[in-house]
Amino acid sequence: MTRIAAVQLAPVVGDLAGNVRRALDAVEAAVDGGAEVVVLPELTTSGYVFTTPEEARSLALRPDDEVLDRFAAAAGPATVVVGFAEATDGDRVCNSAALLDASGVRAVYRKVHLWDQEKRFFAPGDARPPVVETEHGRIGVMICFDMEFPEWTRIAALGGADLLAVPTNWPLGPTPDGERPAEVQIAIATARMNRMAIACADRTGTERTVEWTAGTTIVDALGAVAAQVGPGTGTAWADLDLRASRDKKQADLVDLLGDRRPDLYGPLLD
Amino acid sequence: MTRIAAVQLAPVVGDLAGNVRRALDAVEAAVDGGAEVVVLPELTTSGYVFTTPEEARSLALRPDDEVLDRFAAAAGPATVVVGFAEATDGDRVCNSAALLDASGVRAVYRKVHLWDQEKRFFAPGDARPPVVETEHGRIGVMICFDMEFPEWTRIAALGGADLLAVPTNWPLGPTPDGERPAEVQIAIATARMNRMAIACADRTGTERTVEWTAGTTIVDALGAVAAQVGPGTGTAWADLDLRASRDKKQADLVDLLGDRRPDLYGPLLD
Repeated sequence: MTRIAAVQLAPVVGDLAGNVRRALDAVEAAVDGGAEVVVLPELTTSGYVFTTPEEARSLALRPDDEVLDRFAAAAGPATVVVGFAEATDGDRVCNSAALLDASGVRAVYRKVHLWDQEKRFFAPGDARPPVVETEHGRIGVMICFDMEFPEWTRIAALGGADLLAVPTNWPLGPTPDGERPAEVQIAIATARMNRMAIACADRTGTERTVEWTAGTTIVDALGAVAAQVGPGTGTAWADLDLRASRDKKQADLVDLLGDRRPDLYGPLLD
Repeated sequence: MTRIAAVQLAPVVGDLAGNVRRALDAVEAAVDGGAEVVVLPELTTSGYVFTTPEEARSLALRPDDEVLDRFAAAAGPATVVVGFAEATDGDRVCNSAALLDASGVRAVYRKVHLWDQEKRFFAPGDARPPVVETEHGRIGVMICFDMEFPEWTRIAALGGADLLAVPTNWPLGPTPDGERPAEVQIAIATARMNRMAIACADRTGTERTVEWTAGTTIVDALGAVAAQVGPGTGTAWADLDLRASRDKKQADLVDLLGDRRPDLYGPLLD
Protein backbone atom coordinates (compact mmCIF):
# COMPACT_ATOMS: atom_id res chain seq x y z
CA MET A 1 0.00 0.00 0.00
CA THR A 2 1.09 3.54 -0.68
CA ARG A 3 0.05 6.28 1.72
CA ILE A 4 -1.04 9.35 -0.20
CA ALA A 5 -1.70 12.79 1.27
CA ALA A 6 -3.44 15.51 -0.73
CA VAL A 7 -3.12 18.82 1.04
CA GLN A 8 -5.75 21.57 0.81
CA LEU A 9 -4.31 25.00 1.55
CA ALA A 10 -5.36 28.66 1.35
CA PRO A 11 -2.42 30.46 -0.29
CA VAL A 12 -2.42 34.25 -0.17
CA VAL A 13 -1.55 35.94 -3.42
CA GLY A 14 1.76 37.74 -3.03
CA ASP A 15 2.72 36.23 0.33
CA LEU A 16 5.52 34.01 -0.91
CA ALA A 17 7.19 33.56 2.49
CA GLY A 18 3.94 32.79 4.30
CA ASN A 19 2.70 30.45 1.59
CA VAL A 20 5.98 28.52 1.65
CA ARG A 21 5.98 28.28 5.43
CA ARG A 22 2.40 26.96 5.58
CA ALA A 23 3.06 24.50 2.78
CA LEU A 24 6.24 23.20 4.41
CA ASP A 25 4.39 22.78 7.70
CA ALA A 26 1.79 20.71 5.87
CA VAL A 27 4.44 18.59 4.14
CA GLU A 28 6.19 17.94 7.43
CA ALA A 29 2.92 16.93 9.09
CA ALA A 30 2.09 14.64 6.18
CA VAL A 31 5.50 12.98 6.30
CA ASP A 32 5.15 12.59 10.08
CA GLY A 33 1.86 10.84 9.37
CA GLY A 34 3.58 8.35 7.10
CA ALA A 35 2.78 9.91 3.75
CA GLU A 36 4.80 8.50 0.87
CA VAL A 37 3.31 10.81 -1.73
CA VAL A 38 2.29 14.37 -0.89
CA VAL A 39 0.38 16.51 -3.38
CA LEU A 40 -0.01 20.26 -2.88
CA PRO A 41 -2.18 22.75 -4.81
CA GLU A 42 -1.49 24.61 -8.03
CA LEU A 43 0.51 27.80 -7.50
CA THR A 44 1.01 26.97 -3.82
CA THR A 45 3.87 29.42 -3.43
CA SER A 46 2.46 32.44 -5.28
CA GLY A 47 -1.32 32.41 -5.02
CA TYR A 48 -3.48 32.52 -8.13
CA VAL A 49 -5.57 35.65 -8.71
CA PHE A 50 -3.02 38.01 -10.26
CA THR A 51 -3.92 41.43 -11.56
CA THR A 52 -0.96 41.94 -13.90
CA PRO A 53 1.67 39.80 -15.61
CA GLU A 54 4.28 41.69 -13.60
CA GLU A 55 2.72 40.51 -10.36
CA ALA A 56 2.94 36.87 -11.49
CA ARG A 57 6.52 37.41 -12.62
CA SER A 58 7.51 38.95 -9.30
CA LEU A 59 6.46 35.76 -7.53
CA ALA A 60 8.04 33.32 -10.00
CA LEU A 61 10.85 30.98 -8.96
CA ARG A 62 13.48 29.15 -10.93
CA PRO A 63 13.47 25.38 -10.40
CA ASP A 64 16.85 25.70 -8.67
CA ASP A 65 15.52 28.29 -6.21
CA GLU A 66 16.26 27.58 -2.58
CA VAL A 67 12.51 27.46 -1.92
CA LEU A 68 12.29 24.18 -3.80
CA ASP A 69 15.39 22.94 -1.94
CA ARG A 70 13.43 23.46 1.25
CA PHE A 71 10.60 21.29 -0.02
CA ALA A 72 13.16 18.60 -0.89
CA ALA A 73 14.62 18.87 2.61
CA ALA A 74 11.14 18.43 4.11
CA ALA A 75 10.25 15.45 1.91
CA GLY A 76 12.00 12.79 3.98
CA PRO A 77 11.14 9.44 2.36
CA ALA A 78 8.19 10.93 0.45
CA THR A 79 7.74 12.18 -3.08
CA VAL A 80 6.23 15.68 -3.13
CA VAL A 81 4.38 17.41 -5.96
CA VAL A 82 3.93 21.15 -5.57
CA GLY A 83 2.63 23.86 -7.86
CA PHE A 84 4.62 27.08 -8.30
CA ALA A 85 4.96 30.04 -10.65
CA GLU A 86 8.10 29.28 -12.66
CA ALA A 87 10.59 31.75 -14.08
CA THR A 88 12.08 30.05 -17.12
CA ASP A 89 15.45 30.53 -18.75
CA GLY A 90 13.66 31.94 -21.75
CA ASP A 91 12.17 34.76 -19.65
CA ARG A 92 8.71 33.24 -19.72
CA VAL A 93 6.55 32.68 -16.64
CA CYS A 94 4.85 29.28 -16.49
CA ASN A 95 2.22 27.72 -14.26
CA SER A 96 4.33 24.74 -13.22
CA ALA A 97 4.57 21.84 -10.81
CA ALA A 98 7.71 20.23 -9.44
CA LEU A 99 7.99 16.59 -8.48
CA LEU A 100 10.73 16.32 -5.90
CA ASP A 101 12.14 14.10 -3.19
CA ALA A 102 15.07 14.23 -0.80
CA SER A 103 17.43 14.11 -3.79
CA GLY A 104 15.97 17.37 -5.14
CA VAL A 105 13.76 18.32 -8.07
CA ARG A 106 13.19 15.30 -10.31
CA ALA A 107 10.80 16.78 -12.86
CA VAL A 108 9.13 20.07 -13.66
CA TYR A 109 5.89 20.14 -15.64
CA ARG A 110 4.58 23.32 -17.24
CA LYS A 111 0.79 23.55 -17.56
CA VAL A 112 -0.19 23.18 -21.19
CA HIS A 113 -3.93 23.88 -21.01
CA LEU A 114 -4.14 27.28 -19.38
CA TRP A 115 -7.58 28.24 -18.08
CA ASP A 116 -9.18 31.59 -18.87
CA GLN A 117 -7.28 34.56 -17.38
CA GLU A 118 -4.18 32.43 -16.82
CA LYS A 119 -3.52 33.11 -20.49
CA ARG A 120 -2.81 36.72 -19.54
CA PHE A 121 -0.21 35.79 -16.97
CA PHE A 122 1.50 32.60 -18.12
CA ALA A 123 3.09 31.06 -21.17
CA PRO A 124 1.75 27.56 -21.92
CA GLY A 125 4.04 24.56 -21.61
CA ASP A 126 5.01 22.64 -24.71
CA ALA A 127 5.82 19.21 -23.30
CA ARG A 128 3.78 16.22 -22.23
CA PRO A 129 3.11 15.34 -18.62
CA PRO A 130 6.05 13.54 -17.01
CA VAL A 131 5.63 10.07 -15.54
CA VAL A 132 8.35 9.57 -12.94
CA GLU A 133 9.42 6.21 -11.58
CA THR A 134 9.65 6.52 -7.80
CA GLU A 135 10.02 3.95 -5.06
CA HIS A 136 6.35 4.54 -4.31
CA GLY A 137 5.14 3.91 -7.86
CA ARG A 138 5.05 5.73 -11.19
CA ILE A 139 3.70 9.21 -10.68
CA GLY A 140 2.32 11.37 -13.47
CA VAL A 141 1.94 15.12 -13.06
CA MET A 142 -0.42 17.61 -14.64
CA ILE A 143 -2.20 20.73 -13.42
CA CYS A 144 -5.90 21.53 -12.90
CA PHE A 145 -7.59 22.23 -16.28
CA ASP A 146 -5.13 19.82 -17.97
CA MET A 147 -7.14 16.99 -16.39
CA GLU A 148 -10.23 18.06 -18.34
CA PHE A 149 -8.55 17.13 -21.61
CA PRO A 150 -8.99 13.39 -21.90
CA GLU A 151 -6.20 13.19 -24.46
CA TRP A 152 -3.84 14.45 -21.77
CA THR A 153 -4.88 12.04 -19.05
CA ARG A 154 -4.78 9.20 -21.59
CA ILE A 155 -1.20 10.15 -22.44
CA ALA A 156 -0.28 9.84 -18.76
CA ALA A 157 -2.00 6.45 -18.51
CA LEU A 158 -0.31 5.21 -21.67
CA GLY A 159 2.94 6.48 -20.18
CA GLY A 160 2.41 4.07 -17.29
CA ALA A 161 1.27 6.38 -14.50
CA ASP A 162 0.01 4.48 -11.45
CA LEU A 163 -1.01 7.71 -9.76
CA LEU A 164 -1.79 11.02 -11.40
CA ALA A 165 -0.87 13.92 -9.10
CA VAL A 166 -2.93 16.99 -9.97
CA PRO A 167 -2.26 20.27 -8.18
CA THR A 168 -5.42 22.33 -8.76
CA ASN A 169 -7.12 25.63 -8.04
CA TRP A 170 -10.78 25.00 -8.84
CA PRO A 171 -12.85 28.19 -8.84
CA LEU A 172 -16.23 27.47 -7.25
CA GLY A 173 -18.90 26.89 -9.88
CA PRO A 174 -22.54 25.86 -9.72
CA THR A 175 -23.10 22.23 -8.69
CA PRO A 176 -26.56 20.65 -8.76
CA ASP A 177 -27.84 19.45 -5.36
CA GLY A 178 -26.48 16.09 -4.36
CA GLU A 179 -23.83 16.04 -7.08
CA ARG A 180 -20.08 16.21 -6.74
CA PRO A 181 -18.31 19.20 -8.29
CA ALA A 182 -17.83 18.71 -12.02
CA GLU A 183 -14.05 18.50 -11.66
CA VAL A 184 -14.39 15.66 -9.17
CA GLN A 185 -16.75 13.86 -11.54
CA ILE A 186 -14.10 14.18 -14.21
CA ALA A 187 -11.45 12.75 -11.88
CA ILE A 188 -13.71 9.78 -11.07
CA ALA A 189 -14.47 9.09 -14.73
CA THR A 190 -10.83 9.51 -15.74
CA ALA A 191 -9.68 7.04 -13.09
CA ARG A 192 -12.26 4.52 -14.20
CA MET A 193 -11.57 4.88 -17.94
CA ASN A 194 -7.81 4.53 -17.46
CA ARG A 195 -7.49 2.38 -14.31
CA MET A 196 -5.28 5.07 -12.84
CA ALA A 197 -5.46 6.52 -9.33
CA ILE A 198 -5.74 10.31 -9.12
CA ALA A 199 -4.92 12.73 -6.30
CA CYS A 200 -6.21 16.28 -6.77
CA ALA A 201 -4.99 18.84 -4.22
CA ASP A 202 -7.29 21.87 -4.35
CA ARG A 203 -7.27 25.16 -2.48
CA THR A 204 -9.83 26.74 -0.20
CA GLY A 205 -10.91 30.18 0.91
CA THR A 206 -11.51 33.34 -1.11
CA GLU A 207 -8.87 35.28 -3.00
CA ARG A 208 -9.61 38.71 -4.49
CA THR A 209 -13.34 37.77 -4.68
CA VAL A 210 -12.70 34.35 -6.26
CA GLU A 211 -14.13 31.53 -4.14
CA TRP A 212 -12.56 28.09 -4.35
CA THR A 213 -14.18 24.68 -4.43
CA ALA A 214 -12.13 23.08 -1.64
CA GLY A 215 -12.59 19.88 -3.64
CA THR A 216 -9.40 18.00 -2.74
CA THR A 217 -10.07 14.36 -3.61
CA ILE A 218 -8.15 11.11 -3.90
CA VAL A 219 -9.72 8.57 -6.29
CA ASP A 220 -8.60 4.95 -6.53
CA ALA A 221 -7.83 3.16 -9.79
CA LEU A 222 -11.38 1.81 -10.03
CA GLY A 223 -12.85 5.30 -9.80
CA ALA A 224 -14.00 5.19 -6.17
CA VAL A 225 -13.48 8.25 -4.00
CA ALA A 226 -11.00 7.20 -1.31
CA ALA A 227 -10.64 10.47 0.58
CA GLN A 228 -11.68 14.12 0.62
CA VAL A 229 -11.02 17.08 2.90
CA GLY A 230 -14.25 19.07 2.81
CA PRO A 231 -14.37 22.80 3.60
CA GLY A 232 -11.32 24.59 4.98
CA THR A 233 -7.69 23.62 5.07
CA GLY A 234 -6.70 20.04 5.78
CA THR A 235 -5.27 16.88 4.33
CA ALA A 236 -6.97 13.95 2.61
CA TRP A 237 -5.33 10.60 3.39
CA ALA A 238 -5.61 7.37 1.45
CA ASP A 239 -3.72 4.08 1.52
CA LEU A 240 -3.92 2.79 -2.04
CA ASP A 241 -2.53 -0.33 -3.65
CA LEU A 242 -1.07 1.36 -6.71
CA ARG A 243 -0.38 -2.01 -8.34
CA ALA A 244 -4.10 -2.02 -9.15
CA SER A 245 -3.33 0.64 -11.76
CA ARG A 246 -1.21 -1.85 -13.70
CA ASP A 247 -4.08 -4.28 -14.19
CA LYS A 248 -6.13 -2.90 -17.06
CA LYS A 249 -8.16 -6.10 -17.36
CA GLN A 250 -11.66 -4.97 -16.44
CA ALA A 251 -13.19 -8.34 -17.39
CA ASP A 252 -12.00 -11.61 -18.96
CA LEU A 253 -11.72 -10.18 -22.46
CA VAL A 254 -11.35 -6.48 -21.64
CA ASP A 255 -8.14 -4.48 -21.53
CA LEU A 256 -8.95 -0.81 -21.04
CA LEU A 257 -5.85 0.36 -22.90
CA GLY A 258 -5.34 -2.65 -25.15
CA ASP A 259 -8.89 -2.36 -26.50
CA ARG A 260 -8.19 1.10 -27.87
CA ARG A 261 -8.33 1.49 -31.65
CA PRO A 262 -5.58 4.00 -32.44
CA ASP A 263 -5.84 3.04 -36.11
CA LEU A 264 -9.18 4.85 -36.05
CA TYR A 265 -8.31 7.73 -33.72
CA GLY A 266 -5.43 9.51 -35.37
CA PRO A 267 -6.47 12.02 -38.01
CA LEU A 268 -9.35 13.79 -36.26
CA LEU A 269 -7.23 14.19 -33.16
CA ASP A 270 -4.36 15.80 -35.06
CA MET B 1 -35.90 23.04 -27.19
CA THR B 2 -35.64 19.45 -28.35
CA ARG B 3 -37.70 16.80 -26.61
CA ILE B 4 -35.60 13.72 -26.05
CA ALA B 5 -36.87 10.32 -24.92
CA ALA B 6 -34.50 7.58 -23.77
CA VAL B 7 -36.34 4.30 -23.51
CA GLN B 8 -35.43 1.61 -20.98
CA LEU B 9 -36.59 -1.84 -22.07
CA ALA B 10 -36.15 -5.48 -21.05
CA PRO B 11 -35.45 -7.37 -24.28
CA VAL B 12 -35.66 -11.16 -24.16
CA VAL B 13 -32.82 -12.93 -25.88
CA GLY B 14 -34.14 -14.78 -28.91
CA ASP B 15 -37.61 -13.21 -28.90
CA LEU B 16 -37.19 -11.07 -31.99
CA ALA B 17 -40.91 -10.58 -32.62
CA GLY B 18 -41.70 -9.70 -29.01
CA ASN B 19 -38.71 -7.39 -28.67
CA VAL B 20 -39.67 -5.51 -31.82
CA ARG B 21 -43.29 -5.20 -30.74
CA ARG B 22 -42.40 -3.84 -27.32
CA ALA B 23 -39.85 -1.44 -28.79
CA LEU B 24 -42.31 -0.16 -31.40
CA ASP B 25 -44.92 0.36 -28.70
CA ALA B 26 -42.38 2.45 -26.78
CA VAL B 27 -41.45 4.49 -29.86
CA GLU B 28 -45.10 5.17 -30.61
CA ALA B 29 -45.75 6.26 -27.03
CA ALA B 30 -42.67 8.51 -27.12
CA VAL B 31 -43.75 10.12 -30.38
CA ASP B 32 -47.26 10.59 -28.98
CA GLY B 33 -45.62 12.39 -26.07
CA GLY B 34 -43.87 14.79 -28.40
CA ALA B 35 -40.46 13.18 -28.55
CA GLU B 36 -38.26 14.50 -31.35
CA VAL B 37 -35.38 12.15 -30.62
CA VAL B 38 -35.96 8.62 -29.31
CA VAL B 39 -33.05 6.46 -28.16
CA LEU B 40 -33.50 2.72 -27.56
CA PRO B 41 -31.06 0.23 -25.96
CA GLU B 42 -28.20 -1.70 -27.50
CA LEU B 43 -29.34 -4.92 -29.21
CA THR B 44 -33.00 -4.01 -28.65
CA THR B 45 -34.24 -6.50 -31.22
CA SER B 46 -32.11 -9.54 -30.33
CA GLY B 47 -31.26 -9.45 -26.63
CA TYR B 48 -27.68 -9.58 -25.44
CA VAL B 49 -26.58 -12.68 -23.54
CA PHE B 50 -25.86 -15.12 -26.37
CA THR B 51 -24.41 -18.55 -25.80
CA THR B 52 -23.03 -19.18 -29.29
CA PRO B 53 -22.10 -17.11 -32.35
CA GLU B 54 -24.80 -19.00 -34.23
CA GLU B 55 -27.44 -17.73 -31.85
CA ALA B 56 -26.35 -14.12 -32.46
CA ARG B 57 -26.31 -14.74 -36.21
CA SER B 58 -29.79 -16.23 -36.18
CA LEU B 59 -31.13 -12.97 -34.72
CA ALA B 60 -29.18 -10.62 -36.99
CA LEU B 61 -30.93 -8.30 -39.44
CA ARG B 62 -29.76 -6.56 -42.57
CA PRO B 63 -30.21 -2.78 -42.49
CA ASP B 64 -32.85 -3.14 -45.22
CA ASP B 65 -34.84 -5.64 -43.18
CA GLU B 66 -38.53 -4.85 -42.89
CA VAL B 67 -38.09 -4.65 -39.12
CA LEU B 68 -36.19 -1.41 -39.52
CA ASP B 69 -38.82 -0.19 -41.99
CA ARG B 70 -41.33 -0.61 -39.19
CA PHE B 71 -39.26 1.60 -36.88
CA ALA B 72 -39.13 4.22 -39.64
CA ALA B 73 -42.89 4.00 -40.05
CA ALA B 74 -43.35 4.52 -36.29
CA ALA B 75 -40.92 7.47 -36.12
CA GLY B 76 -43.36 10.15 -37.26
CA PRO B 77 -41.51 13.46 -36.98
CA ALA B 78 -38.86 11.99 -34.67
CA THR B 79 -35.37 10.67 -35.21
CA VAL B 80 -34.95 7.19 -33.71
CA VAL B 81 -31.73 5.44 -32.69
CA VAL B 82 -32.06 1.71 -32.07
CA GLY B 83 -29.53 -1.03 -31.41
CA PHE B 84 -29.72 -4.29 -33.37
CA ALA B 85 -27.61 -7.30 -34.30
CA GLU B 86 -26.58 -6.64 -37.90
CA ALA B 87 -25.95 -9.19 -40.62
CA THR B 88 -23.45 -7.57 -42.96
CA ASP B 89 -22.89 -8.16 -46.66
CA GLY B 90 -19.52 -9.61 -45.76
CA ASP B 91 -21.15 -12.34 -43.65
CA ARG B 92 -20.04 -10.76 -40.39
CA VAL B 93 -22.38 -10.10 -37.48
CA CYS B 94 -21.98 -6.67 -35.87
CA ASN B 95 -23.35 -5.02 -32.76
CA SER B 96 -24.90 -2.05 -34.56
CA ALA B 97 -27.22 0.89 -34.15
CA ALA B 98 -29.39 2.48 -36.81
CA LEU B 99 -30.34 6.13 -36.90
CA LEU B 100 -33.58 6.41 -38.79
CA ASP B 101 -36.55 8.65 -39.42
CA ALA B 102 -39.68 8.55 -41.55
CA SER B 103 -37.48 8.56 -44.65
CA GLY B 104 -35.83 5.30 -43.58
CA VAL B 105 -32.41 4.31 -42.27
CA ARG B 106 -30.05 7.31 -42.42
CA ALA B 107 -26.94 5.79 -40.81
CA VAL B 108 -25.75 2.51 -39.38
CA TYR B 109 -22.93 2.47 -36.82
CA ARG B 110 -21.09 -0.74 -35.96
CA LYS B 111 -19.71 -0.91 -32.42
CA VAL B 112 -15.94 -0.62 -32.51
CA HIS B 113 -15.06 -1.23 -28.86
CA LEU B 114 -16.61 -4.61 -28.12
CA TRP B 115 -16.89 -5.47 -24.44
CA ASP B 116 -15.75 -8.80 -23.05
CA GLN B 117 -17.76 -11.78 -24.39
CA GLU B 118 -19.14 -9.68 -27.24
CA LYS B 119 -15.83 -10.46 -28.91
CA ARG B 120 -17.01 -14.06 -29.25
CA PHE B 121 -20.20 -13.10 -31.02
CA PHE B 122 -19.53 -9.97 -33.05
CA ALA B 123 -17.02 -8.52 -35.47
CA PRO B 124 -15.87 -5.03 -34.49
CA GLY B 125 -16.76 -2.07 -36.66
CA ASP B 126 -14.05 -0.22 -38.50
CA ALA B 127 -15.56 3.22 -38.96
CA ARG B 128 -15.96 6.26 -36.78
CA PRO B 129 -19.21 7.23 -35.12
CA PRO B 130 -21.58 9.01 -37.52
CA VAL B 131 -22.80 12.52 -36.78
CA VAL B 132 -26.05 13.04 -38.66
CA GLU B 133 -27.60 16.42 -39.37
CA THR B 134 -31.29 16.19 -38.50
CA GLU B 135 -33.99 18.80 -38.15
CA HIS B 136 -33.67 18.30 -34.40
CA GLY B 137 -29.89 18.87 -34.26
CA ARG B 138 -26.73 16.98 -35.09
CA ILE B 139 -26.89 13.53 -33.56
CA GLY B 140 -23.85 11.34 -32.99
CA VAL B 141 -24.20 7.60 -32.43
CA MET B 142 -22.06 5.11 -30.55
CA ILE B 143 -22.79 2.06 -28.43
CA CYS B 144 -22.23 1.34 -24.73
CA PHE B 145 -18.53 0.59 -24.05
CA ASP B 146 -17.55 2.91 -26.93
CA MET B 147 -18.44 5.81 -24.63
CA GLU B 148 -15.71 4.74 -22.19
CA PHE B 149 -13.05 5.57 -24.77
CA PRO B 150 -12.59 9.32 -24.51
CA GLU B 151 -10.94 9.40 -27.92
CA TRP B 152 -14.20 8.17 -29.39
CA THR B 153 -16.47 10.66 -27.67
CA ARG B 154 -14.03 13.43 -28.56
CA ILE B 155 -14.24 12.42 -32.20
CA ALA B 156 -18.02 12.78 -32.04
CA ALA B 157 -17.71 16.20 -30.40
CA LEU B 158 -15.14 17.34 -32.94
CA GLY B 159 -17.52 16.05 -35.61
CA GLY B 160 -20.08 18.53 -34.33
CA ALA B 161 -22.48 16.31 -32.38
CA ASP B 162 -25.01 18.31 -30.35
CA LEU B 163 -26.39 15.14 -28.83
CA LEU B 164 -24.66 11.81 -28.48
CA ALA B 165 -27.18 8.94 -28.65
CA VAL B 166 -25.81 5.89 -26.84
CA PRO B 167 -27.76 2.64 -26.90
CA THR B 168 -26.34 0.62 -23.99
CA ASN B 169 -26.60 -2.65 -22.09
CA TRP B 170 -24.80 -1.97 -18.83
CA PRO B 171 -24.25 -5.12 -16.76
CA LEU B 172 -24.81 -4.31 -13.09
CA GLY B 173 -21.52 -3.73 -11.30
CA PRO B 174 -20.63 -2.64 -7.79
CA THR B 175 -21.38 1.02 -7.05
CA PRO B 176 -20.31 2.66 -3.78
CA ASP B 177 -23.18 3.93 -1.61
CA GLY B 178 -24.46 7.29 -2.70
CA GLU B 179 -22.61 7.26 -6.02
CA ARG B 180 -23.99 7.04 -9.50
CA PRO B 181 -23.08 3.98 -11.57
CA ALA B 182 -19.63 4.37 -13.12
CA GLU B 183 -21.04 4.52 -16.64
CA VAL B 184 -23.29 7.43 -15.67
CA GLN B 185 -20.30 9.21 -14.11
CA ILE B 186 -18.51 8.79 -17.41
CA ALA B 187 -21.48 10.23 -19.31
CA ILE B 188 -21.56 13.24 -16.98
CA ALA B 189 -17.82 13.87 -17.32
CA THR B 190 -17.90 13.36 -21.08
CA ALA B 191 -20.72 15.86 -21.48
CA ARG B 192 -18.87 18.40 -19.38
CA MET B 193 -15.51 17.96 -21.10
CA ASN B 194 -17.03 18.26 -24.57
CA ARG B 195 -20.10 20.47 -24.03
CA MET B 196 -22.20 17.78 -25.69
CA ALA B 197 -25.53 16.41 -24.47
CA ILE B 198 -25.71 12.62 -24.07
CA ALA B 199 -28.68 10.26 -23.99
CA CYS B 200 -27.92 6.72 -22.80
CA ALA B 201 -30.76 4.20 -23.19
CA ASP B 202 -30.03 1.20 -20.96
CA ARG B 203 -31.88 -2.05 -20.38
CA THR B 204 -33.36 -3.52 -17.24
CA GLY B 205 -34.20 -6.92 -15.82
CA THR B 206 -32.15 -10.12 -15.74
CA GLU B 207 -31.14 -12.16 -18.77
CA ARG B 208 -29.55 -15.59 -18.39
CA THR B 209 -28.29 -14.60 -14.90
CA VAL B 210 -26.89 -11.22 -16.03
CA GLU B 211 -28.46 -8.32 -14.14
CA TRP B 212 -28.65 -4.92 -15.77
CA THR B 213 -28.05 -1.48 -14.34
CA ALA B 214 -31.28 0.15 -15.53
CA GLY B 215 -29.18 3.30 -15.72
CA THR B 216 -30.93 5.14 -18.57
CA THR B 217 -29.82 8.78 -18.25
CA ILE B 218 -30.04 11.99 -20.25
CA VAL B 219 -27.26 14.49 -19.47
CA ASP B 220 -27.28 18.08 -20.71
CA ALA B 221 -24.36 19.79 -22.40
CA LEU B 222 -23.08 21.19 -19.09
CA GLY B 223 -22.94 17.73 -17.53
CA ALA B 224 -26.09 17.95 -15.40
CA VAL B 225 -28.37 14.92 -15.23
CA ALA B 226 -31.63 16.00 -16.86
CA ALA B 227 -33.62 12.76 -16.60
CA GLN B 228 -33.41 9.13 -15.52
CA VAL B 229 -35.85 6.22 -15.43
CA GLY B 230 -34.85 4.29 -12.32
CA PRO B 231 -35.65 0.57 -11.89
CA GLY B 232 -37.87 -1.24 -14.38
CA THR B 233 -38.99 -0.32 -17.86
CA GLY B 234 -39.88 3.25 -18.68
CA THR B 235 -38.86 6.36 -20.55
CA ALA B 236 -36.66 9.28 -19.46
CA TRP B 237 -37.83 12.61 -20.88
CA ALA B 238 -35.83 15.79 -21.23
CA ASP B 239 -36.39 19.05 -23.09
CA LEU B 240 -32.90 20.27 -23.94
CA ASP B 241 -31.70 23.33 -25.82
CA LEU B 242 -29.20 21.54 -28.03
CA ARG B 243 -27.79 24.86 -29.23
CA ALA B 244 -25.93 24.90 -25.91
CA SER B 245 -23.70 22.19 -27.33
CA ARG B 246 -22.41 24.59 -29.98
CA ASP B 247 -21.08 27.05 -27.44
CA LYS B 248 -17.75 25.65 -26.25
CA LYS B 249 -16.83 28.88 -24.46
CA GLN B 250 -16.75 27.83 -20.82
CA ALA B 251 -15.34 31.20 -19.71
CA ASP B 252 -14.12 34.41 -21.36
CA LEU B 253 -10.87 32.91 -22.59
CA VAL B 254 -11.82 29.22 -22.61
CA ASP B 255 -12.88 27.17 -25.62
CA LEU B 256 -13.19 23.52 -24.63
CA LEU B 257 -12.30 22.26 -28.10
CA GLY B 258 -10.22 25.21 -29.30
CA ASP B 259 -7.93 24.94 -26.28
CA ARG B 260 -6.88 21.43 -27.26
CA ARG B 261 -3.23 20.97 -28.20
CA PRO B 262 -3.30 18.39 -31.00
CA ASP B 263 0.31 19.29 -31.82
CA LEU B 264 1.18 17.54 -28.55
CA TYR B 265 -1.35 14.69 -28.65
CA GLY B 266 -0.62 12.82 -31.84
CA PRO B 267 2.18 10.28 -31.49
CA LEU B 268 1.32 8.67 -28.16
CA LEU B 269 -2.25 8.24 -29.26
CA ASP B 270 -1.29 6.46 -32.49
